Amino acid sequence: MSNITLPLSELYAPIADEMRMVQTRFDAELDSDQAFVEDLLDRVRHFRGKMLRPALLLLTGKACGRLTDDHVTLAAVVEMVHVATLVHDDVLDGADMRRRSPTINAIVGNVQAVLLGDFLISHAFHLCSSLDSQYASRLIGATTNTVCEGELMQNHHRGDASMSEALYLDIIGRKTASLTAAACQLGARFAGADDATTSAARRFGYAAGLAFQIVDDVLDVVGAPDQMGKSLGRDFDLGKPTLPVLHCLAHCALDVRFELQSALSQQPGSVNGQLKAWLASTDSVSYAMDYANQRVADAVEALSALPPGDARSSLSAMAEFVTHRRW
Amino acid sequence: MSNITLPLSELYAPIADEMRMVQTRFDAELDSDQAFVEDLLDRVRHFRGKMLRPALLLLTGKACGRLTDDHVTLAAVVEMVHVATLVHDDVLDGADMRRRSPTINAIVGNVQAVLLGDFLISHAFHLCSSLDSQYASRLIGATTNTVCEGELMQNHHRGDASMSEALYLDIIGRKTASLTAAACQLGARFAGADDATTSAARRFGYAAGLAFQIVDDVLDVVGAPDQMGKSLGRDFDLGKPTLPVLHCLAHCALDVRFELQSALSQQPGSVNGQLKAWLASTDSVSYAMDYANQRVADAVEALSALPPGDARSSLSAMAEFVTHRRW
Repeated sequence: MSNITLPLSELYAPIADEMRMVQTRFDAELDSDQAFVEDLLDRVRHFRGKMLRPALLLLTGKACGRLTDDHVTLAAVVEMVHVATLVHDDVLDGADMRRRSPTINAIVGNVQAVLLGDFLISHAFHLCSSLDSQYASRLIGATTNTVCEGELMQNHHRGDASMSEALYLDIIGRKTASLTAAACQLGARFAGADDATTSAARRFGYAAGLAFQIVDDVLDVVGAPDQMGKSLGRDFDLGKPTLPVLHCLAHCALDVRFELQSALSQQPGSVNGQLKAWLASTDSVSYAMDYANQRVADAVEALSALPPGDARSSLSAMAEFVTHRRW
Repeated sequence: MSNITLPLSELYAPIADEMRMVQTRFDAELDSDQAFVEDLLDRVRHFRGKMLRPALLLLTGKACGRLTDDHVTLAAVVEMVHVATLVHDDVLDGADMRRRSPTINAIVGNVQAVLLGDFLISHAFHLCSSLDSQYASRLIGATTNTVCEGELMQNHHRGDASMSEALYLDIIGRKTASLTAAACQLGARFAGADDATTSAARRFGYAAGLAFQIVDDVLDVVGAPDQMGKSLGRDFDLGKPTLPVLHCLAHCALDVRFELQSALSQQPGSVNGQLKAWLASTDSVSYAMDYANQRVADAVEALSALPPGDARSSLSAMAEFVTHRRW
């Protein structure tokens, strides 16, 4: 457990060279002969942040065998898919800030932001098609199908206080965990892993993705705004039920339940002060964090099928980092 | 020239069986376990309309050799890409109606419409990756990169009355002609055509696409609204300079030029009555139609590199149909 306080750069040490190559490949794919498009792409590059998905792909590949040039390409692809979803999410949520910078929609409006997201997802597929085999194109296509369904479901159920935990988990499984699962599956497969190991790598990525999203949802209500670089309570204000809120709804006093339902479905602006108190009354943040920690345990357990070494240790520490991060 | 009054079904006669298979493959790819997504997809299927792009792909294939199962898949892919752009275009333009039906954004709002467009483009790439070779995935990816750039450029230049004709042609080349060019290139290549014939097929598709878009722009200002199934003058109201408007700006009296510039950049609602008069004063519709007819002539000339027969005759008639259609 001592690894959890390490900076990401130390966890990324086994793949440091390849991570730099991923950035170069990402930038090389996103070119345009239009200066205003290049300007927008410069801003998009700032959204890359922790690059968790490329790191998961490369570390899984390194743990399972030898990293190839295809790994670098695929790591850039999964990051590009992720960044494309961020750009569209910011439009759909009406978000002004991301990572302490203005969002694309805040700078050039919703129309250009939607189109830039389309441009990014198109380039992700284009970059993926540069590989010799169709394996990755098929998996990435199937994964983005699933991610889009998850996003459609989440939006369809905005304000739905009667959402079951199972539905919530299905939604975050599709919109978040399917991509981290695909990243780890690709990492393993392109390192020549057998089916059983590849499947274990996928299970690791899926469980880690679930844990990551649950913690993201928890941080949305209890995180420190200056560390998050965005305002708190946004998910709730947008009517998105999350695990702590669903748990609270199921266990709180009747009068709180009524207020909480009403606040969620009416999207009346931030009720963050009250929300924290409501969640505290049912210990719902602890419940959600416990659930996330169980998914981390699932992830670490799945890792036992991968060969031991520095890369596998980094994967394990990354999974544990998920529930200890504060931003 | 007698073909131009034939209904499309007669032009499509050489590929009638395959066109039915394209519809089946399109529908089979767009499945979801979510009932509300299936409902939206049912509405999207209504947008397919004339299915010009699949027809171009299949007729080019038939003209160049034997149609394969891959042709059917690729015809569904190009239609899916097209439909995805329609769904996003309707959001970006704030359009309420398409083909006499409410748009997706009119029914379920902008957020779901953006996500459904993402879902459609993802499925297009996924379907394309089902082929054995990467050739099509690479061409489709490169083409959608280009389409997105064209859309970004068009929006970037909204209200720009100083746009050159060359820039206008560059924009419609990217956003429209690149996809019809790719459709014809794929049709030829997957029928085993040699490089010279494939290149000629691409030139045909590109020229036909330019002509199609110019006529679309002309119909936006002079078409019959009941035949178009949408309101007139929308492009102008949205600040999109089109070929007749650019020609008019360059040749009209100074006072008209001032009013036209102002109307285009301020997007003040429909000036359709005046716009028609302004365009008439410079004969700008004739200019644009002449230009479109020259592109049709380019297209027909490119066809001479393809083997003669029913399919090539249909392609020729389709190109001529472009500048004679009224909707």
